[in-house]
Amino acid sequence: PDSAAIAAAGARNGQLTKPPGALGRLEDLAIWMGGWQGTDKPHADAPQVVVFAGNHGVTAQGVSAFPAEVTAQMVLNFRAGGAAINQLSRLFGARMDVHALDLDTPTADFTQGPAMDEAGFLHAFLTGWDAVDPASDLLVTGEMGIGNTTSAAAVAHALFGGDPADWVGRGTGVDDAGLGVKTRVVAAGVARHAGATGLEALRCLGGRELAAMAGAIARARTLRIPVILDGFICTAAAACLHSELPGALDHCLAGHVSAEPGHPRLLGHLGKEPLLHLGLRLGEGSGAALAIGVVKGAVACQSGMATFAEAGVSDG
Amino acid sequence: PDSAAIAAAGARNGQLTKPPGALGRLEDLAIWMGGWQGTDKPHADAPQVVVFAGNHGVTAQGVSAFPAEVTAQMVLNFRAGGAAINQLSRLFGARMDVHALDLDTPTADFTQGPAMDEAGFLHAFLTGWDAVDPASDLLVTGEMGIGNTTSAAAVAHALFGGDPADWVGRGTGVDDAGLGVKTRVVAAGVARHAGATGLEALRCLGGRELAAMAGAIARARTLRIPVILDGFICTAAAACLHSELPGALDHCLAGHVSAEPGHPRLLGHLGKEPLLHLGLRLGEGSGAALAIGVVKGAVACQSGMATFAEAGVSDG
Repeated sequence: PDSAAIAAAGARNGQLTKPPGALGRLEDLAIWMGGWQGTDKPHADAPQVVVFAGNHGVTAQGVSAFPAEVTAQMVLNFRAGGAAINQLSRLFGARMDVHALDLDTPTADFTQGPAMDEAGFLHAFLTGWDAVDPASDLLVTGEMGIGNTTSAAAVAHALFGGDPADWVGRGTGVDDAGLGVKTRVVAAGVARHAGATGLEALRCLGGRELAAMAGAIARARTLRIPVILDGFICTAAAACLHSELPGALDHCLAGHVSAEPGHPRLLGHLGKEPLLHLGLRLGEGSGAALAIGVVKGAVACQSGMATFAEAGVSDG
Repeated sequence: PDSAAIAAAGARNGQLTKPPGALGRLEDLAIWMGGWQGTDKPHADAPQVVVFAGNHGVTAQGVSAFPAEVTAQMVLNFRAGGAAINQLSRLFGARMDVHALDLDTPTADFTQGPAMDEAGFLHAFLTGWDAVDPASDLLVTGEMGIGNTTSAAAVAHALFGGDPADWVGRGTGVDDAGLGVKTRVVAAGVARHAGATGLEALRCLGGRELAAMAGAIARARTLRIPVILDGFICTAAAACLHSELPGALDHCLAGHVSAEPGHPRLLGHLGKEPLLHLGLRLGEGSGAALAIGVVKGAVACQSGMATFAEAGVSDG
């Protein structure tokens, strides 16, 4: 980030017609946006939402309440404008792109071998890298992939340890037996790829949509585009960048904390405080897209409010 | 609310292309909106923000960090479009109205007598009542009034008891000495009007902008327009309606919880769970206006998403 812009945004903030600090986290958020955008008047006029879809070999083990065909069906729903993320993107004026990643060929079952070979991983990562519109000023990465809470739990467990059960939740809604299966699958996958961290954990235990999200988030960093992280799966993918290089997610904020129990734990490891606490657990980028409204509010105040001098208001 | 519409909205929600419950509080919010609007496809296309301004005789006792002239200066700032609430209203497409309530004649110092006489109270209440646009589909009531956290603290203490200090915070930013003054003023006011509850507490300890907010909230109920409550002062005004008639705030949701320490306490007494937790403490309706984005997101998903049947998605 641009330290001169941070200082200038902070100075402007102090002159706006409100008591110091009265806009709470909106003030920090606006100054943070200013730092990445290099201005004391940040903007969120051209948000982009990119949704990546992938299929997972590990679904053969019965880890999801929904059949794997739903991934492709939901891609059609995204393209037809019928999903939650379409409504939220439209509401906040975001460009929305959907990338289906080789859905007919699921990744390998990670309990048997790496989910992706190196070429396949790189291809998915670069699909994400290339998906970012350099003209956007705020990025949300979302995902769809039946089975991907299991993949994300395995990635998180590989990166941060703890018990496998700490990272496993009900996803789209498995029952207690399904939860037990997921936990055993996560444990088996992490044991199979013991010692994998960073992007290697993402390759061995992740999925194409997770690799693509990591690619998009890394690209946004090179473009200094702020990113709003979504839920557990998005955050697990992002955490692999953090695992490679602490600070790699400094341009990312946590849009929300989901109802998937591993998510607050993951955010804690990353030192990210979520903006919203609304119990969402849908994915698609939906929680992050909802947070676009908060970011827009923050920058609208920072950039649009009058100063005490402009308004002729006594500043206490 | 319309129980048939609630049932219809719930049934529609269950058919939308997402796992059951995956949109968390957005789902409850959308169904609640449907109940008040009498439809399974609720909307938030015509929000209205009404800001009331009043001056307080109790400022003579040194309860605020800002001089009382700031109330009138900020009204000019609202009219010129320079305040935080202007930016947030514009962002979310809300009509915004400002009503300055007899600023040249502050209310009486409530430690000496009732803040308003009965005619004055009724006039302020009816200003709020008449300010609601019957064509709006969502209402935010905001306020500006130097000294009004002291007034709100006195109202809250009168309604819900506890220690005076439980309800007193730093407002726009008083120091420790100022906090002590505020606490003594609140205690003296409540002692002076011992036994006043409901609208009588509002008349004796409130201010014109608090009375007007209560009037607008009551009017919205007769029009079945859902209301988003703002911070401590708005909620204290609303609580007087609740004190008259439990259930009087069933058409209201808590937009946010502010950094003013009495606010979470007040929301607890009203049984309201805030949508946002962002540390705002500005008033003007700003926290509630920010929550318009969340409500818009909730109804956009409920009313715009495809059903499983429409999208050809397998529903698990």
